[in-house]
Amino acid sequence: MAGEKSRVASVEGKLIRKIRDATSPSSRHWPSLNLGIGDDAGLLRPKPEHETILTCDWFLEGTHFLRDKHPPDAVGWKSLARALSDVAAMGGEPRCFLLSLAFPQSHTGRWLAEFLRGLCRGALKFKCPLAGGDTTQYGQILINVTAIGEVRKGQAVLRSGGRPGDLVFVSGRLGEAELGLRQLRAMRKANARDAAVRKHLYPEPRLTLGRRLTSSRIATAMMDLSDGLSSDLPRLCAASRVGARIYTGKLPTVTAESAAFPVHKRNAPELLDLALNGGDDYELLFTVSPRKAHYLPPSFEGILLTNIGEITRERSLTLVSEDGREHPLHARGWDPFGK
Amino acid sequence: MAGEKSRVASVEGKLIRKIRDATSPSSRHWPSLNLGIGDDAGLLRPKPEHETILTCDWFLEGTHFLRDKHPPDAVGWKSLARALSDVAAMGGEPRCFLLSLAFPQSHTGRWLAEFLRGLCRGALKFKCPLAGGDTTQYGQILINVTAIGEVRKGQAVLRSGGRPGDLVFVSGRLGEAELGLRQLRAMRKANARDAAVRKHLYPEPRLTLGRRLTSSRIATAMMDLSDGLSSDLPRLCAASRVGARIYTGKLPTVTAESAAFPVHKRNAPELLDLALNGGDDYELLFTVSPRKAHYLPPSFEGILLTNIGEITRERSLTLVSEDGREHPLHARGWDPFGK
Repeated sequence: MAGEKSRVASVEGKLIRKIRDATSPSSRHWPSLNLGIGDDAGLLRPKPEHETILTCDWFLEGTHFLRDKHPPDAVGWKSLARALSDVAAMGGEPRCFLLSLAFPQSHTGRWLAEFLRGLCRGALKFKCPLAGGDTTQYGQILINVTAIGEVRKGQAVLRSGGRPGDLVFVSGRLGEAELGLRQLRAMRKANARDAAVRKHLYPEPRLTLGRRLTSSRIATAMMDLSDGLSSDLPRLCAASRVGARIYTGKLPTVTAESAAFPVHKRNAPELLDLALNGGDDYELLFTVSPRKAHYLPPSFEGILLTNIGEITRERSLTLVSEDGREHPLHARGWDPFGK
Repeated sequence: MAGEKSRVASVEGKLIRKIRDATSPSSRHWPSLNLGIGDDAGLLRPKPEHETILTCDWFLEGTHFLRDKHPPDAVGWKSLARALSDVAAMGGEPRCFLLSLAFPQSHTGRWLAEFLRGLCRGALKFKCPLAGGDTTQYGQILINVTAIGEVRKGQAVLRSGGRPGDLVFVSGRLGEAELGLRQLRAMRKANARDAAVRKHLYPEPRLTLGRRLTSSRIATAMMDLSDGLSSDLPRLCAASRVGARIYTGKLPTVTAESAAFPVHKRNAPELLDLALNGGDDYELLFTVSPRKAHYLPPSFEGILLTNIGEITRERSLTLVSEDGREHPLHARGWDPFGK
């Protein structure tokens, strides 16, 4: 019985080795990370004259992804990308991440291997090695990623820097990920060749754009769009103690070219609803002083940059439709406690 | 309907404010933490000539605690203490932590308030403010804490530094927390006046001891005891590529004075089993070169320091009983994938 116990007791150890082996190609290249997984904690040597960015994100089965719809490698990729999107929103550079993973015994084989493949692809692409974590068994698949980034001292762009008169910008097209989720739900098997589905499964945190907006000191306030514009903009405005006017006609909605959108649904109200309330886009929402706005190109490395409105002194959120009528903007994005 | 959605959409915001308000007394005193919760990420200004310690720990309902047995304030305290125990094991000083919390809608009231009370008591005691986190709704109570610490460059004590001939030490008494858990399970209501129950519910990470052992350069290898000596010692030995001989007669087991241990169970084999295999003690396991061992006092700030054996070149783990007989030491501590 003792031998048996000792055999099963090594299962956790084997899993940790599996995770370490899968991610070691990404760790080996970063000498600033003194110690990876396997000790009590990871050790990071901070860059001089920089501040450390700290953020963590849940990625839970049933809430953030569906076990039978989301391919395991997308679960791995997205759990890291989501956390790095917060680093991008501060104008920072990723340094490393911690992975907390809980899953059923039945998922220690193929599911884990594919999950790690997606995760490592992200770690390599975003130059962000695994520095440690915690693994345990659970009935549901639970993931939590802590992302650690760095930004030059005093340069981080906060949500609180928006000033009346500043122009409001977003990157990319809004609502595409939500559209992808809808298509994924309708499919029997995920088809990642569809642009919207791909955006939902494999979002790209806007790290280069975030850093450029920060180092050039163009953005006065910034955050990432994770729950949808109508839920996230009020957060930026509250932190900056301002309001905003957003023009529906200016919103970069999904176009027929950008996604295989079912033809009968290609109508403006639905696209507008997606752009205002769709979550998971991981685009950047930022404000720019009007005298600096002309420094902004219409796109950056292929990512659209669109002025969608302006910051107001009056602390309300207004949606101006194309015929000039004004409506209050209600938060209809994703809220975990909403239902 | 729009108004209704906007009302419910603010629930997450209210919860974040509740958490921030509850923890603000602890944040306000630490100017090095530039930004607490409410932005995309926390910002930490690292101390010059220090490395950053990064660690995270699951604390999950059903696996690490029981909803109907563990008082919510103990859940708050212990979720932080567990993570800080890893900082202690590296010889570091806590700087801040991130809290990821998922729980049912039914727990947003009294449960959350008491949980936060326990958490804040820990944050104040360990001088470790909340720097950010993520909150969502879930059927089970899920907690993940990322602890961030600092240690002078090159001084962190790793698991890999043990050398043949080094003496093996532990702090405190082993098996007390496991005994506390057994008592808690048998009780109708938790009685925290019982020393063993208190040790299980409110463990104290050995931060001051860990720092002292590090700054004095006495410990050659170190880790914390979270899964039990028989599971944790093999990890230290594997990292150091060594073996160990442990003497049962030297183990600091639970004594009749240290806990309200049921009289009929006060027999040596049971106490020995607790000391070898009981989890959750959060004591320190460390090795010391024999020529430095005399610098170690028998206790430090009331915490017993006990030499329980020695490191061997031969890579096996041996338990030597009081009559001199030798047995292999099998890992029988806690393994999440063990059953």
